[in-house]
Amino acid sequence: MRVGAAIVGINGAIATTLTAGLSAVRRGLAQPLGMVSELPEFTGLGLPGLDELVFGGWDIRLEPHADWARRHGLVPSELLSTISSDLESISVFEGPLIGVVPAALGLSGVNLARNVHSRRQALERLAADITAFRTENELDTVVVLNVSSTEPPLAHAPFWSDAGALARAIDDNDARITSSVLYAYAALREGCPYVNITPSEASDIPALSEVALGNGLPHAGKDLKTGQTLCKTVVAPMLRARNLRVEGWYSMNILGNDDGAVLTDPANRASKIATKLGVLEDLLGYDGFDHQVHIHFYAPRGDAKEAWDTIDFCGWLNTKMTLKINWLGADSALAAPLAVDLVRFAALAYHRGESGEMTHLAPFFKSPLGAAPPAFADQMRDLFAYAERVRVDMVDR
Amino acid sequence: MRVGAAIVGINGAIATTLTAGLSAVRRGLAQPLGMVSELPEFTGLGLPGLDELVFGGWDIRLEPHADWARRHGLVPSELLSTISSDLESISVFEGPLIGVVPAALGLSGVNLARNVHSRRQALERLAADITAFRTENELDTVVVLNVSSTEPPLAHAPFWSDAGALARAIDDNDARITSSVLYAYAALREGCPYVNITPSEASDIPALSEVALGNGLPHAGKDLKTGQTLCKTVVAPMLRARNLRVEGWYSMNILGNDDGAVLTDPANRASKIATKLGVLEDLLGYDGFDHQVHIHFYAPRGDAKEAWDTIDFCGWLNTKMTLKINWLGADSALAAPLAVDLVRFAALAYHRGESGEMTHLAPFFKSPLGAAPPAFADQMRDLFAYAERVRVDMVDR
Amino acid sequence: MRVGAAIVGINGAIATTLTAGLSAVRRGLAQPLGMVSELPEFTGLGLPGLDELVFGGWDIRLEPHADWARRHGLVPSELLSTISSDLESISVFEGPLIGVVPAALGLSGVNLARNVHSRRQALERLAADITAFRTENELDTVVVLNVSSTEPPLAHAPFWSDAGALARAIDDNDARITSSVLYAYAALREGCPYVNITPSEASDIPALSEVALGNGLPHAGKDLKTGQTLCKTVVAPMLRARNLRVEGWYSMNILGNDDGAVLTDPANRASKIATKLGVLEDLLGYDGFDHQVHIHFYAPRGDAKEAWDTIDFCGWLNTKMTLKINWLGADSALAAPLAVDLVRFAALAYHRGESGEMTHLAPFFKSPLGAAPPAFADQMRDLFAYAERVRVDMVDR
Amino acid sequence: MRVGAAIVGINGAIATTLTAGLSAVRRGLAQPLGMVSELPEFTGLGLPGLDELVFGGWDIRLEPHADWARRHGLVPSELLSTISSDLESISVFEGPLIGVVPAALGLSGVNLARNVHSRRQALERLAADITAFRTENELDTVVVLNVSSTEPPLAHAPFWSDAGALARAIDDNDARITSSVLYAYAALREGCPYVNITPSEASDIPALSEVALGNGLPHAGKDLKTGQTLCKTVVAPMLRARNLRVEGWYSMNILGNDDGAVLTDPANRASKIATKLGVLEDLLGYDGFDHQVHIHFYAPRGDAKEAWDTIDFCGWLNTKMTLKINWLGADSALAAPLAVDLVRFAALAYHRGESGEMTHLAPFFKSPLGAAPPAFADQMRDLFAYAERVRVDMVDR
Repeated sequence: MRVGAAIVGINGAIATTLTAGLSAVRRGLAQPLGMVSELPEFTGLGLPGLDELVFGGWDIRLEPHADWARRHGLVPSELLSTISSDLESISVFEGPLIGVVPAALGLSGVNLARNVHSRRQALERLAADITAFRTENELDTVVVLNVSSTEPPLAHAPFWSDAGALARAIDDNDARITSSVLYAYAALREGCPYVNITPSEASDIPALSEVALGNGLPHAGKDLKTGQTLCKTVVAPMLRARNLRVEGWYSMNILGNDDGAVLTDPANRASKIATKLGVLEDLLGYDGFDHQVHIHFYAPRGDAKEAWDTIDFCGWLNTKMTLKINWLGADSALAAPLAVDLVRFAALAYHRGESGEMTHLAPFFKSPLGAAPPAFADQMRDLFAYAERVRVDMVDR
Repeated sequence: MRVGAAIVGINGAIATTLTAGLSAVRRGLAQPLGMVSELPEFTGLGLPGLDELVFGGWDIRLEPHADWARRHGLVPSELLSTISSDLESISVFEGPLIGVVPAALGLSGVNLARNVHSRRQALERLAADITAFRTENELDTVVVLNVSSTEPPLAHAPFWSDAGALARAIDDNDARITSSVLYAYAALREGCPYVNITPSEASDIPALSEVALGNGLPHAGKDLKTGQTLCKTVVAPMLRARNLRVEGWYSMNILGNDDGAVLTDPANRASKIATKLGVLEDLLGYDGFDHQVHIHFYAPRGDAKEAWDTIDFCGWLNTKMTLKINWLGADSALAAPLAVDLVRFAALAYHRGESGEMTHLAPFFKSPLGAAPPAFADQMRDLFAYAERVRVDMVDR
Repeated sequence: MRVGAAIVGINGAIATTLTAGLSAVRRGLAQPLGMVSELPEFTGLGLPGLDELVFGGWDIRLEPHADWARRHGLVPSELLSTISSDLESISVFEGPLIGVVPAALGLSGVNLARNVHSRRQALERLAADITAFRTENELDTVVVLNVSSTEPPLAHAPFWSDAGALARAIDDNDARITSSVLYAYAALREGCPYVNITPSEASDIPALSEVALGNGLPHAGKDLKTGQTLCKTVVAPMLRARNLRVEGWYSMNILGNDDGAVLTDPANRASKIATKLGVLEDLLGYDGFDHQVHIHFYAPRGDAKEAWDTIDFCGWLNTKMTLKINWLGADSALAAPLAVDLVRFAALAYHRGESGEMTHLAPFFKSPLGAAPPAFADQMRDLFAYAERVRVDMVDR
Repeated sequence: MRVGAAIVGINGAIATTLTAGLSAVRRGLAQPLGMVSELPEFTGLGLPGLDELVFGGWDIRLEPHADWARRHGLVPSELLSTISSDLESISVFEGPLIGVVPAALGLSGVNLARNVHSRRQALERLAADITAFRTENELDTVVVLNVSSTEPPLAHAPFWSDAGALARAIDDNDARITSSVLYAYAALREGCPYVNITPSEASDIPALSEVALGNGLPHAGKDLKTGQTLCKTVVAPMLRARNLRVEGWYSMNILGNDDGAVLTDPANRASKIATKLGVLEDLLGYDGFDHQVHIHFYAPRGDAKEAWDTIDFCGWLNTKMTLKINWLGADSALAAPLAVDLVRFAALAYHRGESGEMTHLAPFFKSPLGAAPPAFADQMRDLFAYAERVRVDMVDR
């Protein structure tokens, strides 16, 4: 099985960390740490092998992939020299400059020359790129993975809930149609499983969900759960299980990479904060507490994202207590291996003929599509149960 | 159903917080926060009602229970005035001064007048106390609950693994037989379910486990999991599920209450650190990391225990990351409601005819007896499953 | 010497904490902790004795002072009972409802009935209140102290820089004239030393500075330095002395009291953040680093303000390092004793015939008036030197 | 002026960071961050230029200096390649294996072949090494700087307080005479200023102080103040200036380098903890609080030392508050530039004919020799005042 991953944002920090890291793993220079699909629970499950994956994708920053891997500064330069041929082989398609969020256009290195004049033209170009990627690399499957800059919440429009109406709105070049929607549409129209690891709206809108089901395709999203929210989905169930009442949960984030720069725009930040704010009530089973999430661009940190939480809760005799969590993570190093996992799981689902929301992938996301339990441990249990079902099916066949 | 709880250490910080808090809850002055058995999953299960519980017990500090409730300084003085009659009704039996750890004898307020001359005499006195407690309060069940000071690990002796040999060693007044062992033995001999929330060895030794099984009694322990270790059992599974490799986990604790004072003795601290150190390898599935647990008596904190953890882990491209957890808990306010839970669950098990280790109570303990999964979420799932089984049995009956 | 302190905001959290605490100190129930003027360096300096101070003042919340002391919930109720007669003797004048910041009007308990129709009328009323306070209490001196809610920065107007023009603008009832300006003007016109512990603009505007100098009066401000900024003024000099280059200083504050509520209004918060942001460049001697200060109202904290700072700096071989500071302070308990200090120091300066900005009081303030060194240690050294000069003058006399 | 620095421990982490970093600075590849002597207050003072310094020294790990620079892993490998010729030129003398602390002998790479048979022989060898170093490099001055592993406190002996008796004890090869004492003796006998940045006892013992004075030599020490203690000397004066009463100060340190490894031996740790514990009482002006300092070897950290402090203090109305400090420093990168500073200041003092304890260097040390104020700000003020005196003397000349 040869599986391609067409990444929206192939020259970004996450994607370059992904390709460089995977190259290191394949060459035996690093262990596949951070990859869920490498847990013993998933061995022998028919996931595509790490050697069977081919990466490529679109970007609006057009210099070669290897150059961007160096520019982001997240991969040791000695490793980059060793693996340069691997990175040079990665195709970068020119991303259509339409529906793109202004903050993303402001990132350094973006080629601002207009390259399409309509959303319809953009869509067809994306479809052609997918076909070319598949053919040139002799791929059985192409998974499309959105890793691009966060967009603001979609402007209100009735066509979001109807596939036909959405197609007509694309023909009308409706300005409310964002880049992420176009990529997701192209993927699902061209028979590709689709995964969205950003907070942007994409296959989660009813119109695209309809396209996925119609074409028998699996999809998943959204907003990768890598640090603060991940911790919330294990700490909140703990407090709930102990019947300790949360009175406040203050969450702060600082980061200084491109992702952070894009989030300085309040409209974009709104999407991110929405996925971050949504989790607690379901986890705790009540509301009425003071839940705040703040995100600030803080240049000195670069990709070394820091989160700080203070959780105020109340127990026996109304005693007030506090738990503080300080997460010093590496944004791209946490996201990259999970992106590889998602490509593998999406390819597996596709080959098994699954369609619609991959709810078993809930542990990867802040706002998982479909009906999933809110606690991380329950989500993981469901993913392990899925693996068991796959195993049973393999025996049955 | 009237259920008595005979507490070893009835005048300590945890027990007085328990009785005062329960009184406040019964009078509608406080909510039963911090009590697991009050979660909706356990309603209608046949647990004894909060009004059906009667508390009493032993101590080596003999002033009235209400005085000690005031001396520990953990209950608001206004509440103490309101509930004084409740506290005054609580019986305090004179604890035998034999096999008691020296550090406990050094606590302020201990009556050091010798009151027994042999372990056999102590055992018979404890049995008589239980009988008196049961009779005077017209109790259906008496649960014995050990909340006393941590003892050092038991000295090596062959009689720990044989009930008959242990009985003979008691006759011989063997100095290796500790206070906790005597209380547990008395409880199990007198037909009482037994629960040990301290790190001391008691019903977990084979000889007493044999007595429990022989008498058809349920028992549980040991070392209540209320803060740092609780967090470990949710955070470590999270890191394991993400395939992030832990390289070090440094855990520090400071506390300034009697519990902390007793732990300044390295022999006693050894028991505590043993239960605290034991958890990580099983949770992570590997060893070889630097796991340290330090406990220091720090007077300014009193009962407001603080824990600080720094967890160093490694991900994609060998990137090093850190998670820090700072727990500002209230030692007694966390332990007291769980102690009530354990009395209720033990009484339920007893009435259902269960005997041996109550492995479904694993989420309460750092070192649960019996074969329980190490992750807190899995332990809670097992407890919820137990509740479901109880419910099914109720319907069947 | 009998010194009166007429406090703007006498029923607020800080003022009630001040009067209750001072009462406790006078009765020997508490030590004067947190008071700078009680350091040995200031003994025998002629500061008014704690028994010579009389407190009163204005508020727009008109219930008796003792009631508000209870409502703020910051003084133990047992103490309040003991000292109730002291608190009942404190006069509360009705604050004019003109020029008051809307957020302050929204605090619970504010009497919103219009009580003046012009700024001129308000000014004369304040003057009359001061006279009455002086006469009734047979005071040698009245110090006016602003402890009221933070106002937004003053709207641009030329009359801020000219005393005569300001007087005419008051006659014109110019809406840009804020409550704080009126109080400061009334104080200085009536011969009272004036101290402003809030971030609001008051005697620091040139027009009022002119009035102070003209009337030979000392004044001081602004914005009390009690936690995060205090720490900055000792930590930044340390980093500067070690030639470690600061690349970023991220400062977060959460609080849940009335002060925090008023700061949820971005206009008010602007004043506060301005005084908090202003300090670092002077302390470090360079700029170009990422300095951020965020303040959020977080209900669960009440008066227990928390600050969290992360400081990124760079050293030898460009090594990046971090210092984190977590301040868990009690807003009013920190401010109240410093307010007493300032009344004493202002009374001393007045009796010594000093006029203009009391630059020796710089260690108390985030934005000290006049030319003071930025480092706290240097400011304290100057204050100690002032004390030495006072001592020398006493001998000379 | 050509100044040599003969370093005891030239192949350790600090010394190799020093030589590599200085090389980078000289070549314009890095700024001299972390160097106090580069502050504007010290320009034009006659300190030896960075190009006038020559480094060399002793070690018991005999591979070339450049190899050790690589082995410690603290200098980027690209830089090491660039500066390899600089490092290769650095002389490593074979340190005598007598009086060396066992923990240091246990470090990897130590050549354990016996190379001297008596302390007298060792002393003469050190003297010869100094002479050779001076001659070969045509040096005006040689400063001897102790950077070696921490030794336990000196065993009791009367000869510590008498230079003549010490010389005789050396002749007797008294086993209580440690390596650090021998190096300091050799330095001072051979006319070299001596600086000790470790907690070991050396020139601070009366016998050696006598030698220094007798030979008209300046000396300084001990135990470089780079992180936690540095913070204490600015934070404690702040709390003292605010009359906030410290009730407890809990200090924890974790590190994973050779320094940490040596400190796992309780005898060695005793010296370190002694210098760390000594500071608070003087800074605060009272005692009776719970001051604890703990140091643990924690492998994952390597040279990235972390300190965590929690400070409990009490204010107005007995309100309890807490300040927490978390220092994430780089042990060697903090120490190395200060070591260069000390060489420069010692050379300056020598050329100015100063002798005895250089008390103006107090801001560098945890336990400064001589009578220095305890607060860091006061110590810096004294150092700046010294610079002014030097400047005045230069004009006078």
